[in-house]
Amino acid sequence: MTVSDETLEKLRQVSTPTLTTQLLVSFGLTNVSLRNVLPVDVEMARFAGPAYTLRYMPVREDLRPAQHLNHPDNLMTPAVETMPAGSVMVMDANGRNDVGTLGGNILMRLKVRGIAAAVTDGGMRDIPEIEGLGMPVCCTAAAAPPSFTKLMLADIQCPIACGGVPIFPGDIIVGDSEGTVAIPAAFAEAVADGGLAQDHIEGWVNRKLESGAVMPGLYPPDDDARAEYEAWVKAGEPDNV
Amino acid sequence: MTVSDETLEKLRQVSTPTLTTQLLVSFGLTNVSLRNVLPVDVEMARFAGPAYTLRYMPVREDLRPAQHLNHPDNLMTPAVETMPAGSVMVMDANGRNDVGTLGGNILMRLKVRGIAAAVTDGGMRDIPEIEGLGMPVCCTAAAAPPSFTKLMLADIQCPIACGGVPIFPGDIIVGDSEGTVAIPAAFAEAVADGGLAQDHIEGWVNRKLESGAVMPGLYPPDDDARAEYEAWVKAGEPDNV
Amino acid sequence: MTVSDETLEKLRQVSTPTLTTQLLVSFGLTNVSLRNVLPVDVEMARFAGPAYTLRYMPVREDLRPAQHLNHPDNLMTPAVETMPAGSVMVMDANGRNDVGTLGGNILMRLKVRGIAAAVTDGGMRDIPEIEGLGMPVCCTAAAAPPSFTKLMLADIQCPIACGGVPIFPGDIIVGDSEGTVAIPAAFAEAVADGGLAQDHIEGWVNRKLESGAVMPGLYPPDDDARAEYEAWVKAGEPDNV
Amino acid sequence: MTVSDETLEKLRQVSTPTLTTQLLVSFGLTNVSLRNVLPVDVEMARFAGPAYTLRYMPVREDLRPAQHLNHPDNLMTPAVETMPAGSVMVMDANGRNDVGTLGGNILMRLKVRGIAAAVTDGGMRDIPEIEGLGMPVCCTAAAAPPSFTKLMLADIQCPIACGGVPIFPGDIIVGDSEGTVAIPAAFAEAVADGGLAQDHIEGWVNRKLESGAVMPGLYPPDDDARAEYEAWVKAGEPDNV
Amino acid sequence: MTVSDETLEKLRQVSTPTLTTQLLVSFGLTNVSLRNVLPVDVEMARFAGPAYTLRYMPVREDLRPAQHLNHPDNLMTPAVETMPAGSVMVMDANGRNDVGTLGGNILMRLKVRGIAAAVTDGGMRDIPEIEGLGMPVCCTAAAAPPSFTKLMLADIQCPIACGGVPIFPGDIIVGDSEGTVAIPAAFAEAVADGGLAQDHIEGWVNRKLESGAVMPGLYPPDDDARAEYEAWVKAGEPDNV
Amino acid sequence: MTVSDETLEKLRQVSTPTLTTQLLVSFGLTNVSLRNVLPVDVEMARFAGPAYTLRYMPVREDLRPAQHLNHPDNLMTPAVETMPAGSVMVMDANGRNDVGTLGGNILMRLKVRGIAAAVTDGGMRDIPEIEGLGMPVCCTAAAAPPSFTKLMLADIQCPIACGGVPIFPGDIIVGDSEGTVAIPAAFAEAVADGGLAQDHIEGWVNRKLESGAVMPGLYPPDDDARAEYEAWVKAGEPDNV
Repeated sequence: MTVSDETLEKLRQVSTPTLTTQLLVSFGLTNVSLRNVLPVDVEMARFAGPAYTLRYMPVREDLRPAQHLNHPDNLMTPAVETMPAGSVMVMDANGRNDVGTLGGNILMRLKVRGIAAAVTDGGMRDIPEIEGLGMPVCCTAAAAPPSFTKLMLADIQCPIACGGVPIFPGDIIVGDSEGTVAIPAAFAEAVADGGLAQDHIEGWVNRKLESGAVMPGLYPPDDDARAEYEAWVKAGEPDNV
Repeated sequence: MTVSDETLEKLRQVSTPTLTTQLLVSFGLTNVSLRNVLPVDVEMARFAGPAYTLRYMPVREDLRPAQHLNHPDNLMTPAVETMPAGSVMVMDANGRNDVGTLGGNILMRLKVRGIAAAVTDGGMRDIPEIEGLGMPVCCTAAAAPPSFTKLMLADIQCPIACGGVPIFPGDIIVGDSEGTVAIPAAFAEAVADGGLAQDHIEGWVNRKLESGAVMPGLYPPDDDARAEYEAWVKAGEPDNV
Repeated sequence: MTVSDETLEKLRQVSTPTLTTQLLVSFGLTNVSLRNVLPVDVEMARFAGPAYTLRYMPVREDLRPAQHLNHPDNLMTPAVETMPAGSVMVMDANGRNDVGTLGGNILMRLKVRGIAAAVTDGGMRDIPEIEGLGMPVCCTAAAAPPSFTKLMLADIQCPIACGGVPIFPGDIIVGDSEGTVAIPAAFAEAVADGGLAQDHIEGWVNRKLESGAVMPGLYPPDDDARAEYEAWVKAGEPDNV
Repeated sequence: MTVSDETLEKLRQVSTPTLTTQLLVSFGLTNVSLRNVLPVDVEMARFAGPAYTLRYMPVREDLRPAQHLNHPDNLMTPAVETMPAGSVMVMDANGRNDVGTLGGNILMRLKVRGIAAAVTDGGMRDIPEIEGLGMPVCCTAAAAPPSFTKLMLADIQCPIACGGVPIFPGDIIVGDSEGTVAIPAAFAEAVADGGLAQDHIEGWVNRKLESGAVMPGLYPPDDDARAEYEAWVKAGEPDNV
Repeated sequence: MTVSDETLEKLRQVSTPTLTTQLLVSFGLTNVSLRNVLPVDVEMARFAGPAYTLRYMPVREDLRPAQHLNHPDNLMTPAVETMPAGSVMVMDANGRNDVGTLGGNILMRLKVRGIAAAVTDGGMRDIPEIEGLGMPVCCTAAAAPPSFTKLMLADIQCPIACGGVPIFPGDIIVGDSEGTVAIPAAFAEAVADGGLAQDHIEGWVNRKLESGAVMPGLYPPDDDARAEYEAWVKAGEPDNV
Repeated sequence: MTVSDETLEKLRQVSTPTLTTQLLVSFGLTNVSLRNVLPVDVEMARFAGPAYTLRYMPVREDLRPAQHLNHPDNLMTPAVETMPAGSVMVMDANGRNDVGTLGGNILMRLKVRGIAAAVTDGGMRDIPEIEGLGMPVCCTAAAAPPSFTKLMLADIQCPIACGGVPIFPGDIIVGDSEGTVAIPAAFAEAVADGGLAQDHIEGWVNRKLESGAVMPGLYPPDDDARAEYEAWVKAGEPDNV
């Protein structure tokens, strides 16, 4: 199932906390935010796109040669060269934050190929290069060692877990400075619309609270508060809430 | 027992490492620094005030509705609206750093109400809003999901553990850029005075070391060093140590 | 065995991810990067020098007095006063990130004595002082409590584990903004030379990728790519790759 | 709310795996089985009764004297002497399996007082005495040290977490050789009846499978299988399934 | 690649510690023993057979219905009904020891179908039934809750990790009372032969040690000891070593 | 310092829970019971003797050859052949329960040499052989892989941590079916005498409780109870308490 560019653009405007609330309240999902997976550079953190998944598993020493990128059985190079532009590359690195899943050279190629972001629940190498890359990269830690010290690539475009969250190829992955969230493609449009609405009214609530309003009735808004909000919207959202 | 404003003001001038030394050396307490509980914004990290405690426990799915802030049994809204100005709100979030204990709207209300700081051993949501809030907020992680994905509020103003440290309502909670410390109210004045004295002499020691003095005799200061320090203080603390 | 200043200087120019690759590919070592041991100040993070090791163990309450720096049995003061200038002080703090291994005063003395860096797999105290110190300090966390709340110093200049990595006195410890790596002294020269070569060609590869080159054949470079690289080097490394 | 003796007796006949299935399928509860909390003696493991709760927290060294059973502020002795016969004593020991929550003497008093079982998510002391006690005792480990090395008793008859499961006073706690389960009192009767029915039909299924029947249609039973089962029951449950 | 019945039979006679030594010494593999995966019944623990793999991942709440065995998309029932007799069913349960991967009914069907053993790095349900089943079952814990409280089945017959060990379909899985080991099929024959030889000479060494022989020269055996052993074998392995 | 055989014999008669109470109450030690270190065979679990310590650290791949017992630098063989009869061999295996610290052959040699027990905070191999060995062996798990897959022996007869407890060579190590405890040699006699006295009066208390006595005044015994106990002792400890 394809999610429209319009929905992706909306999702890029909704905060990840709001997305998790929408997924819980509207769809009953409690496990959608990738644990400890945060952007290397908080200024380069906003993205949304369909997941292209890679699955690692613990390395077996005699299979380490196949992890070298020039080995004929290596899965990484074809993945990097063929995944569609706009994809979010999501790697199940088994939560190993003591190895770097990718480094500067592969990330540069991904950026040039138009990949929306690279996400792993392991570490990342070459942090200084990532900071200048111009593509969002999310991970759990800086980690110098190459991935094949501990991991090998097992499969691509299969269901994975990343940061403890189940992710299917094509799920929409959204990131911002405080988190990374997976949204089943079928729910993406509803979550985008619900999220924008929630963020907007909560922004109004926040300004009311800043002005000294009490929480009961206002947050969460009861019918009266909601009517006041709608009147404020209709009035063109004046500065004075 | 009430701790004076003067003592609180002194405590805001003592570093948290020094407070832990005082509590160990003078009172035998080894477990006073909340593990991994650090300020979201290191520029907005200094505070001291009496603990107002909230205790969470794992959520039971059928009780999730009562976690909504507008539910008649919800404990959060009355706590937020009634805790005394100057309090430090301390939450036992069971160390769950994969959920956000509070978000921007409640934190705004707490700030307006004059709460000194909000402290949790779980995550916090809406980090960008917290960075502009103007109230210290301490937590273990950025975490997008709402608390009720995993937790429910069980009780208020009871003894809790936060970051592995036992905390009673009224304990004095002090924070700075490198930690959050709980001080039993009965010990607060002695710790404040002892801490100021320790920081002052250690500052003098540091300048002596910077000038090339050797450690033995100086750090920790023996009687001679202490006499030299006192003379320096009496002399008006000249630049030349 | 002594490692030359020239080799140390080369090691300071190689990134820690590259060092781990060299140690794996050339010497089969998979466990050389200290887990979670990162510089307090990423701007003051580059160093290389021989390890001077200290080993902590869990404190026994009746032996806590001997942890005070002025106790005749204390091992810290003589270590601080006698370790050779240029050493990297490496502490096996048993991975306890809830105590501060060292604080500002000892660190000042180490800096004055010409120590290259202080490294621990525990916490560090007095982070603001460390940020102004002018000596690299690497640890796993900010932690206010003094080390002797939980640890005692057991031994010096013996083999230790730090961040899960085996370290012998005299191993070369290299740090940068994204990691801390231990290199057996006997391998240091080969790793330094191999690392510089690797970084150089990977820099060229990165510029090729940035210009739109595809990965196969280029990364890792096959014979043709390597010949092109060598020609580029011979041509004086022109801007146009 | 009171649960009838008849329901308690039924619950003692249902296996804990079946109870967890009933609580999930009928009430949507996923978190009801106390992690790692197992009977010391698998031959003395079956019990059901209402929870009488105790909550521990990390000890503060200066409050350790109040943990001694003869201290006037101690909460344990009055709890032991007054909790109703038939209760299951459930202790939130913060999951500390390195201390023994209770030992032989208190357990003997509980047994004489008619307590149904003692349950903790910490360790237990005096395992050999427990093995001869004649009362079910469930814990996570054998642990020699007294509880007050690490813990202090904070409260009684409040909501707690034990083994990661939320438990309210009066919840029905059921144990057998492979687990310990908490059932909200309001759900106990339905769970008991549903569980007995499930165990009975699954016993029939198992005998069919043992005789060579294939799984599809039989497990879980479709309408035809269910009809066959009912006919078998009506026929007096003959040996030949 | 197929491993002969003769090799499987030899593997059933070699202890799992010896198998790990063989895999390290002859093939350089350090990660072959499934962590914490032990037989429910140590009397029913010896098995060897090719792995038939299943991979779980964290459950997504809206996909829980497909985990029911009668759902058309469910992967378990076809796997159970079609995996070849003699297979060892190996489940990557993500190390979740708080849920039971399988229970009595499915295990009964597997036993009737001639499966050699069922292995998981999660928990197992219905332990009393397993103890009477007559088929080896290996897991990390007794756990009452059904798997779909936390997990969903993602894939079958793909490479997995179980107990931290990489396992491919067709790898030979060998179990005994103290462990569960995965052997790449290509190495099985050499490991079987090497293991039988190692166990035999170590048995002789043990009897020598029991008689008072010293370790140097004997364990590990030097050339003289090896000659003495060979003479003893040639002599018909007399009681007197 | 030497502990007398008489004291060792007394210590073998005191339960490990009682020893931990004595060490806390009389000497303020809270960390004396080795976490998770339990006897392989609960019927062969009672021992007391002075610690002979060995310290492991993470293996470095190029040093693995020196771990082979016949390597000239190997530390294990001389330790095994020279440690005094009656010693308890205590190994700091870094808490790695996924490798076996020792196996059947070395343990046989230790037994023949009169070693009192072998204790590790790692795993042990060859569990079936250990069960028939006739010497107490304490560990945290059954683990098939040889130690040198992950560890190397770093030092002998130095201070170590085992199961999180600080242990010096010569500390008295006492084991029983529910634990393993380290006692500083200087405290051994007082702990032995205090422990015997405590066990005796608690035995009397238990019989009083079994007869229906209430806890207050009796446990812990107040002056009246203590007088009654002493009268009972003087009367020859009649059956009727």
